[in-house]
Amino acid sequence: MPTYSNRLMGLTGGGDDGWGLFYRARALKDAGEPVLELTIGEHDTRTAPDILDAMDASARGGHTGYAAVPGTRSLRDAVAKRLSSFSELTYGPENILITPGGQSGLFAAHSLACDPGDTALLIDPYYATYPGTIRGVGAVPKPVATHPEDGFQPREADLMAASLGAKSLLINTPNNPTGAVYSDATLEGIARVAGARDLWVISDEVYDSQIWEGTHRPFASLPDMFERTLTVGSLSKSHAMTGSRLGWVAGPAGAVAQMINLATHTTYGVPGFIQDAGCYALSLGVEAEAAVAAPFLRRRNMVLERLAQQQASNSLQIRAIPPSGAMYVMLDIRATGLSGNDFGEALLEEERVAVMPGESFGVAAAGHIRVALTLPDEVFATALDRLFAFAARQMDGRCAATA
Amino acid sequence: MPTYSNRLMGLTGGGDDGWGLFYRARALKDAGEPVLELTIGEHDTRTAPDILDAMDASARGGHTGYAAVPGTRSLRDAVAKRLSSFSELTYGPENILITPGGQSGLFAAHSLACDPGDTALLIDPYYATYPGTIRGVGAVPKPVATHPEDGFQPREADLMAASLGAKSLLINTPNNPTGAVYSDATLEGIARVAGARDLWVISDEVYDSQIWEGTHRPFASLPDMFERTLTVGSLSKSHAMTGSRLGWVAGPAGAVAQMINLATHTTYGVPGFIQDAGCYALSLGVEAEAAVAAPFLRRRNMVLERLAQQQASNSLQIRAIPPSGAMYVMLDIRATGLSGNDFGEALLEEERVAVMPGESFGVAAAGHIRVALTLPDEVFATALDRLFAFAARQMDGRCAATA
Repeated sequence: MPTYSNRLMGLTGGGDDGWGLFYRARALKDAGEPVLELTIGEHDTRTAPDILDAMDASARGGHTGYAAVPGTRSLRDAVAKRLSSFSELTYGPENILITPGGQSGLFAAHSLACDPGDTALLIDPYYATYPGTIRGVGAVPKPVATHPEDGFQPREADLMAASLGAKSLLINTPNNPTGAVYSDATLEGIARVAGARDLWVISDEVYDSQIWEGTHRPFASLPDMFERTLTVGSLSKSHAMTGSRLGWVAGPAGAVAQMINLATHTTYGVPGFIQDAGCYALSLGVEAEAAVAAPFLRRRNMVLERLAQQQASNSLQIRAIPPSGAMYVMLDIRATGLSGNDFGEALLEEERVAVMPGESFGVAAAGHIRVALTLPDEVFATALDRLFAFAARQMDGRCAATA
Repeated sequence: MPTYSNRLMGLTGGGDDGWGLFYRARALKDAGEPVLELTIGEHDTRTAPDILDAMDASARGGHTGYAAVPGTRSLRDAVAKRLSSFSELTYGPENILITPGGQSGLFAAHSLACDPGDTALLIDPYYATYPGTIRGVGAVPKPVATHPEDGFQPREADLMAASLGAKSLLINTPNNPTGAVYSDATLEGIARVAGARDLWVISDEVYDSQIWEGTHRPFASLPDMFERTLTVGSLSKSHAMTGSRLGWVAGPAGAVAQMINLATHTTYGVPGFIQDAGCYALSLGVEAEAAVAAPFLRRRNMVLERLAQQQASNSLQIRAIPPSGAMYVMLDIRATGLSGNDFGEALLEEERVAVMPGESFGVAAAGHIRVALTLPDEVFATALDRLFAFAARQMDGRCAATA
């Protein structure tokens, strides 16, 4: 029988990348166990009824045939307007390719930037699909580690050292899994490296509506960066439309034209009625996005209160850098002496709370767990009770062992 | 500035592949000209209201979050049941990956079969995206020509001669653009070549509901072929759901598992509410599919009647092999002395009827035009009036010049 391509056989790096925990939690829940899931970035609310009204009206109105592969003119205009609102940059429809979700945008951007064998940089810790996306276009992922003591902001010197000969650099701010929002100093350092090494910068900004401190500064808006930046966005997180698979990749018109050509051969466009729903969602403006984001800020602050209480009791089993954005908190549980994986496994076993081990996101977040802020407040409070109680027990055991 | 990847720069073979005519016709129409479009495979009807009801009910019911990347269990089951109905093969959900349209299935299948630099065979004439899909995974497309005198059925000897060292062979039956339905002899010849050369056979069967003569025999159902066949299907043509982007690739479970892994990194699944609409559509059974297909059979027969009338008048300006399936008729206009391109250009200019030149589909259909059966009967009759009148004028001119 014929063999599978090397590209697909090598797509994931081997092992379960910590996702075994996620699947075990899901299986327990499906079997009726009362598992509290704080794993993936899925809102606890559904897509709003008025957005579904817009989708239904479009479909009934006959927008069920092939839509233009680059996206409808009205949605490309609406996305261009949204991107233009963040900075002095002016986007037009020719700068936008509509994609079936942000993940398709990441794939298209790497397809444009990299040929087989090329080196593509990414920042560790990283969203789980990043290395496989790079391998999917035949390129070689090269992670650049960040450090908890820097708030997981990448160091310019590390990037400069790693990037000789690389073709692209994938960044993500606000960051999943760390919640870091890159500072001006970080962004300017990345821009210097990109210029020095002539890199494509693929900037995943799907969490741009979830900013808790500071403001969102698109990477493309830094001086001289527009022409080398491919910005990936989506309505998944900003409008609770994860299941609609509606995103985009934005960049220089010439690059977008190439990616449109690719889209003809990979997806052949996005449903017109979903694009019309997206147009309606974007017409609601920033207030609607803030309303979708608000619960995550509340729950982020619930976590910070717990940490403050714990600090007041002089029992620092868990630390965290307060996340500046995104729908997660990364907790440093190294004081418990456990790995993120072991902490997560035992927490699921003993407390029926599911989190993602830091090890799921590379090596830089080992000894951490990522908590998704995706349960209703009261349930989330219960999950925190259990999580902090579990961590305290590990400390007790550890101190007893040491004593 | 950084360069674009060679893969994307070389995605299309250069030239406009005859699609310039399509875009000129569309532009004329958008400018208010009464162009009759017989170009692309888009139904003249929209998706049925009851299918849209099912979609809306699913979305309102909360199926707006991430759906499982391989597809919902219910849709995988429904597609497995449909595929099992064609032959003695028994498909299960583990044999099915749901994709955002058949095009994504073609891309996934070639990603599985081919590494960069590998040779991937296709049959000329071919659907316009085929070569670019192969180049999109870094492989090298190698067309194998068929011949009008064979009814565009590929010859086993030609395939055997071309396939040494190839990794895959892409076939399409019922065929776009020719309307050929591969005979048992053709299918068995392909199977011998696939076995001898250890090829993956990627079988595009998206027109399996549009069979005018004979029956649909899935390639995977030939002896010993299941393990080396990746079957691509879709609800686009069978249920007038082109814009919903809902398709699948089916094959051995191990191969499907690899393509699911790829899907995580390219599309991250298909909207759950669209999948639920697809489940509903498939639950309507073959009668519903036959109802969607019926107009194309009627119009195909209208063309055959015209050809018979023309033959009766001893003026054979146009010939055709009666299509056995699919929503197109390929007309042989070589008697007019014009290329397909020139015929199409002049037909658009003089008669405001748009067709696709045979040259859009490779080299084997030069001197032909493809007529899509996609206008309401009365309008279609008018388009045929104009087309046959135009062809007759070319003959008159030609005979006058010869005399």
